[in-house]
Amino acid sequence: MAKTKKGLVIVNTGDGKGKTTAALGLMLRAWGRGMRVCMLQFIKNEKARYGETKAALKLGLEIIATGDGFTWMSKDMDKTVARALHGWEIAKERISSGDYEIVILDEFTYPLHFEWLDVGEVITWLKENKPPMLHLVITGCKAPQELIDYADLVTEMKEIKHPHNDGVQAQPGVEF
Amino acid sequence: MAKTKKGLVIVNTGDGKGKTTAALGLMLRAWGRGMRVCMLQFIKNEKARYGETKAALKLGLEIIATGDGFTWMSKDMDKTVARALHGWEIAKERISSGDYEIVILDEFTYPLHFEWLDVGEVITWLKENKPPMLHLVITGCKAPQELIDYADLVTEMKEIKHPHNDGVQAQPGVEF
Repeated sequence: MAKTKKGLVIVNTGDGKGKTTAALGLMLRAWGRGMRVCMLQFIKNEKARYGETKAALKLGLEIIATGDGFTWMSKDMDKTVARALHGWEIAKERISSGDYEIVILDEFTYPLHFEWLDVGEVITWLKENKPPMLHLVITGCKAPQELIDYADLVTEMKEIKHPHNDGVQAQPGVEF
Repeated sequence: MAKTKKGLVIVNTGDGKGKTTAALGLMLRAWGRGMRVCMLQFIKNEKARYGETKAALKLGLEIIATGDGFTWMSKDMDKTVARALHGWEIAKERISSGDYEIVILDEFTYPLHFEWLDVGEVITWLKENKPPMLHLVITGCKAPQELIDYADLVTEMKEIKHPHNDGVQAQPGVEF
């Protein structure tokens, strides 16, 4: 079978560490090659993103926060939903612009999982509008099955062992 | 229970993508915070490392190749073993130097899995010589159980779906 080149749809899901971190590593690799890449963060959390935000600023990488913190605990759910919808509008604009080689939608599985966005509509839009050579990376727990079916490359990050259970603090630079 | 701060031993293992890439993301985060970090690559593969090597050069990140390519296919196994042992000597020097906040041993599970290095001896050395605050990251398939028992944070990257099965080429910037 002849090998073809195409933009991949990559999903990093699962309950373990490394979903966003692997997307950042991919951003670093792409930056090393001079590729045009941006990350949209659907769950904004300034503290948790501190290390990568500082790195992004230094490197001129585009990381855009579209969410409003740990949204599943929000008391103002209408606003949360509105922001997720707004984030998806920004994402659509970036994806269809043709300005990027890689677009990363970080924690984008959450608005899909909570059905703030309809996964079927999102995939239909992507099938019609994603430039064929654009790589799209989506991270987050609980990726819906429809998204897995649509994706080319899916990895589950599975927690085997986690130090939070042993009374160890989250570590700057390592976990955020 | 009071939370303590300590250097974590982190293992990224499993048959899926993202083990090395998450370590690179962690390197990017740490670099963003101005932390001192180095990566030793036990399976040297210039092509596969191209994106991160270019990025590392641009950023001044220290990435050191200690291996000799896809060593499990080497016809000169004595040399392969000798290079892995040499790599571990470099690793010991970096780990015990006190010069780093994070040391990454990329694909280090291979010399352990193939028993070129004795995992018990490696862990005994680490217990005695790793500075308490140093974060140590080890990546690669088939992490031995003794290593998992020793580690604080273990994630299995599990392949759910991979495009190589569908006749799609490996993609520059994304997979290497």
